[in-house]
Amino acid sequence: MSGAPGQFPFTRGIYPDMYRSRLWTMRQYAGFGTAEESNRRYRYLLSQGITGLSVAFDLPTQMGMDSDHPLAHGEVGRVGVAICSLADMEALFDGIRLDTVTTSMTINSTAAILLSLYVLVAKRQGADLTKLSGTIQNDILKEYIARGTYIYPPRAAMRIITDLFAWTSRELPQWNSISISGYHIREAGSTAVQEVAFTLADAIAYIEAALAAGLAIDDFAPRLSFFFNAHNDFLEEIAKFRAARSLYAKIVQERFGAKNPKSMLLRFHTQTSGATLTAQQPDNNLIRVTLQALAAVMGGTQSLHTNSRDEALGLPSEESARLALRTQQILAYETGATATADPFGGSVHLEEQTRGIEEEARVLIDRIDSMGGMLRAIEQGFPQARIEEAAYEYQRQIESGKRIIVGVNRFQREEAPILVFEVDAALEESQRRRVAEVRASRDAAAVVRTLDELEAAARGPENVMPRILAACEAHCTVGEISDRLRAVWGEYRPQ
Amino acid sequence: MSGAPGQFPFTRGIYPDMYRSRLWTMRQYAGFGTAEESNRRYRYLLSQGITGLSVAFDLPTQMGMDSDHPLAHGEVGRVGVAICSLADMEALFDGIRLDTVTTSMTINSTAAILLSLYVLVAKRQGADLTKLSGTIQNDILKEYIARGTYIYPPRAAMRIITDLFAWTSRELPQWNSISISGYHIREAGSTAVQEVAFTLADAIAYIEAALAAGLAIDDFAPRLSFFFNAHNDFLEEIAKFRAARSLYAKIVQERFGAKNPKSMLLRFHTQTSGATLTAQQPDNNLIRVTLQALAAVMGGTQSLHTNSRDEALGLPSEESARLALRTQQILAYETGATATADPFGGSVHLEEQTRGIEEEARVLIDRIDSMGGMLRAIEQGFPQARIEEAAYEYQRQIESGKRIIVGVNRFQREEAPILVFEVDAALEESQRRRVAEVRASRDAAAVVRTLDELEAAARGPENVMPRILAACEAHCTVGEISDRLRAVWGEYRPQ
Repeated sequence: MSGAPGQFPFTRGIYPDMYRSRLWTMRQYAGFGTAEESNRRYRYLLSQGITGLSVAFDLPTQMGMDSDHPLAHGEVGRVGVAICSLADMEALFDGIRLDTVTTSMTINSTAAILLSLYVLVAKRQGADLTKLSGTIQNDILKEYIARGTYIYPPRAAMRIITDLFAWTSRELPQWNSISISGYHIREAGSTAVQEVAFTLADAIAYIEAALAAGLAIDDFAPRLSFFFNAHNDFLEEIAKFRAARSLYAKIVQERFGAKNPKSMLLRFHTQTSGATLTAQQPDNNLIRVTLQALAAVMGGTQSLHTNSRDEALGLPSEESARLALRTQQILAYETGATATADPFGGSVHLEEQTRGIEEEARVLIDRIDSMGGMLRAIEQGFPQARIEEAAYEYQRQIESGKRIIVGVNRFQREEAPILVFEVDAALEESQRRRVAEVRASRDAAAVVRTLDELEAAARGPENVMPRILAACEAHCTVGEISDRLRAVWGEYRPQ
Repeated sequence: MSGAPGQFPFTRGIYPDMYRSRLWTMRQYAGFGTAEESNRRYRYLLSQGITGLSVAFDLPTQMGMDSDHPLAHGEVGRVGVAICSLADMEALFDGIRLDTVTTSMTINSTAAILLSLYVLVAKRQGADLTKLSGTIQNDILKEYIARGTYIYPPRAAMRIITDLFAWTSRELPQWNSISISGYHIREAGSTAVQEVAFTLADAIAYIEAALAAGLAIDDFAPRLSFFFNAHNDFLEEIAKFRAARSLYAKIVQERFGAKNPKSMLLRFHTQTSGATLTAQQPDNNLIRVTLQALAAVMGGTQSLHTNSRDEALGLPSEESARLALRTQQILAYETGATATADPFGGSVHLEEQTRGIEEEARVLIDRIDSMGGMLRAIEQGFPQARIEEAAYEYQRQIESGKRIIVGVNRFQREEAPILVFEVDAALEESQRRRVAEVRASRDAAAVVRTLDELEAAARGPENVMPRILAACEAHCTVGEISDRLRAVWGEYRPQ
């Protein structure tokens, strides 16, 4: 068996006591429409017992476009909340003290801007920044591999990330500077082994970039965090989490010479798999989510989002979001699953499956190393092609009936169409008005000056983070800041 | 670790391949109102994919009273279907070939009568009786301990059971002659250890009674089956199933000298725990049932009923019954949980927990042995008192908040009252009419003759089963047959 929980290589968990000492964070991903609407949902979820916030941003915000950008039309507030400037961010957290919550923000290309806005709201609330706790996704590599919300070419994007690592390690010591995400890799159709391998290969690329920028491993590695998928195969998923912990600890220690054990801990958030949910017989999704959530807990996750039953259909209703949270609460308080760290430890099957995933993932990482690392591998389309193959095979199994999806290719029934939560159509107009008001009421000279200073920093070696923060404070918008960086670095177009 | 699956003492499962060779039977317990209504529900469930039938009988049928008995008023068709005579049983299985299904019947004091009716329906369908497959609960001891639907004093009840063992071993070789039930012991509030110990102590009493009646262990033991609860504590429940298998195999081999390995196999049906369901926030029950069902599957059950979300409120709707079945189908086809026999095998925690439950249960069985066996222990109120203590402690933990029940003593909310499925009020009248019609249209002389012959058999050593069958064939009712046996054996009144 692979050591005790809390002992290197942490196969059995990163803490000796695991949930006996501290439950995972119940962090339900939410965000839609305006900042005010999302704020109401956060307050509702807090009243129902969530223990961490998790912000979903709309596509324009993720792509560095304001709500009044022509390409934003139809997408404002759709898959998340629209945040253009400090005014929006203040509305988003109105009445929520940021030094009393932990917040995760799913934002990548514009992570530095949104984190700056968050920090400014916290400052205005009088918060002690050294106590701010949360995570910014900030994982651009998986965007090129699987998710698609990139702006700049990879090397420029990596530079903002290392700037953010350096800045947060000084200014926000409790903040996770990145959430390296296998989630979207898996959602795009990868296997469990690929999810582990590509995520850890991304981590290696970030660590190497930070080291190349002059940071010391034990200064930033303790604030690297991860984000995995909890898919359908119950035992394989638990083995996956165990294998990822073990492999990562060894990489950080052996390859990067970390001395601080905290640098070696693979701390991760988990979300149940959206791709496994079905629009057919949506109540079946409750069953899937429950089983996936148990796998995450038995796999030792630090934080968990349980999908809502209607997540395959649109934005979750208040009722279904509450039930998704109840799933976590029942797991935590009724099942006794929290009393034992790594209950599968020593299981012949699980230990072997864990070793198998770790070995296969290591082989894949070696392959990426031999290509010159993950950036090169992405440029050559290597992870993308492997995921595509796996996704194709999965789909083929469903179509041939070899893989059964209940309600889809077996146990089907006639169903009435289902009412789906719709984003208010007037929202885009009101959001455009708000951006216009912000532009009209701010100090125009400060806007130009801070953007110019940001541009100068981006052209040289200076850390861009303080410049982004200053621009945000001068009420520059997410779009304006992104445009200045686009002017310096250009935009990425995949071949 | 405790041997391989399929090897004595079968801790890790009764078959080497477990679900890789054969899935558990998806057997949803159902029955309400008239035979026709229940027949429609069975056909619906079969169309949705159940792989075994499970009949719930109403209280009058369980207590040997016809629907027109004064004490039956208000209870006809309420908690199950009302079956008074052969006509009802034929309607119950109309259009369902009994040699193509496996049927479980939850009936105890009147088990011999209901089994006779079932056999007669099968005969009329032209079925080969040696192929009839299913289970009759027929476990009277747990009625005295926990459930309360007894008629005769224990020793008379034990005599019908041994008569039934002897008769089925000759006539229905594929039929499980009993389902020795820990389920109701647990529902009454016992601990997991008590559930195992009292159920196996009941088994010992049945085996001893059968041996005393002159049967040979390997002639009847292969057709003894079991029925357990899947409660909330996920790991403890899996350990419980493993411990029960191991302890039973040793008892049958060491104590009773069985030679046939099939005699040693603890084959069991599982039902998720009704007592853990809450009327508050009933959708939460979906989460509980899913987790309990996974425990049953990881514990190696041969058959499973998953409760419906509204089972705490009344009879399940068609929709919720379907979703309960979907839970099993998702477990079977989407989670990969069927690919590995006993996935916890070798787990340090689970193996230790299994040994612990087995040892504690053995101590409790030794105690019952020292009292002179389970019949004596029941007469002295021993298992009843232990269960009462455990139930009190559980309730105390809920009231003190030490044990959290989501939606009950934490995470509560205001809720609108819920519409509950109601039994049709006209049903009782129609059922009374049907009994009257049966009485009016049958051969009255045959009724008297077969009942007299049954009474004579009950007064002597002759096996009552053929006499009950003859009375059923002469259209005697469940109440009439039970009354004749009451006349011989009296009724049991607990002190």
